[in-house]
Amino acid sequence: MEEILQANKKLNLIWAHPRKDSLTSNIALAIKEQVTEIGYEVNATDLYAINFNPVLDLIDEPDWNNPLKEYSDVVQNLSADLSPENIIVMVFPIWWYQLPAMLKGYIDRVWNYGITYGEGSKVPAKKIIWIALVGEDREGFSKRKHNQHLENLFNKGIASYCRIPESEVLFLYNTIGKDLDDPNTYYQNLIAEAINFVKMKI
Amino acid sequence: MEEILQANKKLNLIWAHPRKDSLTSNIALAIKEQVTEIGYEVNATDLYAINFNPVLDLIDEPDWNNPLKEYSDVVQNLSADLSPENIIVMVFPIWWYQLPAMLKGYIDRVWNYGITYGEGSKVPAKKIIWIALVGEDREGFSKRKHNQHLENLFNKGIASYCRIPESEVLFLYNTIGKDLDDPNTYYQNLIAEAINFVKMKI
Repeated sequence: MEEILQANKKLNLIWAHPRKDSLTSNIALAIKEQVTEIGYEVNATDLYAINFNPVLDLIDEPDWNNPLKEYSDVVQNLSADLSPENIIVMVFPIWWYQLPAMLKGYIDRVWNYGITYGEGSKVPAKKIIWIALVGEDREGFSKRKHNQHLENLFNKGIASYCRIPESEVLFLYNTIGKDLDDPNTYYQNLIAEAINFVKMKI
Repeated sequence: MEEILQANKKLNLIWAHPRKDSLTSNIALAIKEQVTEIGYEVNATDLYAINFNPVLDLIDEPDWNNPLKEYSDVVQNLSADLSPENIIVMVFPIWWYQLPAMLKGYIDRVWNYGITYGEGSKVPAKKIIWIALVGEDREGFSKRKHNQHLENLFNKGIASYCRIPESEVLFLYNTIGKDLDDPNTYYQNLIAEAINFVKMKI
């Protein structure tokens, strides 16, 4: 019984940042540690570490007449991790108010026609959690509604489109650490906030 | 005198699509031909053809304490094309309601701190024109305000942030060509619409 329960607690953790010691990486690794402790099997994908190529080329171009099209090996391998039984957690910086190219290309290529949507596709997760690290402060970022637009993109544009029943977004602000007396404490608090959010939502 | 006028009519044309015979490529090449005919010197950058790598790595990570940081060769070369005297035209498909990773990564890497914004930067264009090819129809796309959100991103998030005085967006819809009796005529009309838009705006 215990084993069956464990087998159902799977979490795909995907993150993208060029620096191993970035706040993004630190948050991803802290989440990995904490959810493993509470019994999750974590499938961790550090897109920079695996040298993922975000460029969608002809082999991965969707063929609207053929949802069974066989995509590239890397796309097939990464899509095999997706399951309607699992939770997905994405951790990434916001660059130009949007996903970095690395993570956008992961979606462009892997969340493809016949994989996460369209005929023959599977629901890629039962829940998805987006942890978005924003360089600027909340006021500057929300003034032009970038947070609302991202929520719309993540929750409606991507999650709903792929029939993922639940989608939750956490924004962490001022990750550049402007005007802080004690940046270390500030960053530790952001890491704690991310962990708490994930634990609360899963 | 004639030569001086010509020298001021420069246009950077940037596009991204994996297929050489795509509607995106056809529109880009048609614009190139037409604006050349009216005296523009066109600097054409087909991001797929030059095998641009959209992944921002450490060498191109902005250093907020050093706007004079020397970025990678490809970033330096592509940023040398940018000038407050020039017009930029971008042509691209919308994937997942956003820029494809290839073009997002061009922005992430080349439109960098100290290049297009921040201390020591230059205004990268006097005007920018975004030609966005949307697979679905206008109704489906605008229902969730994806077009408004993209306009906000392009005009305010990117162009204004880089002090580009004018930014114009054209959406071309149903580029997948669903339910068309005469797709050829439809696509020819889209190409003509893009050319007319560019000619009207430059």
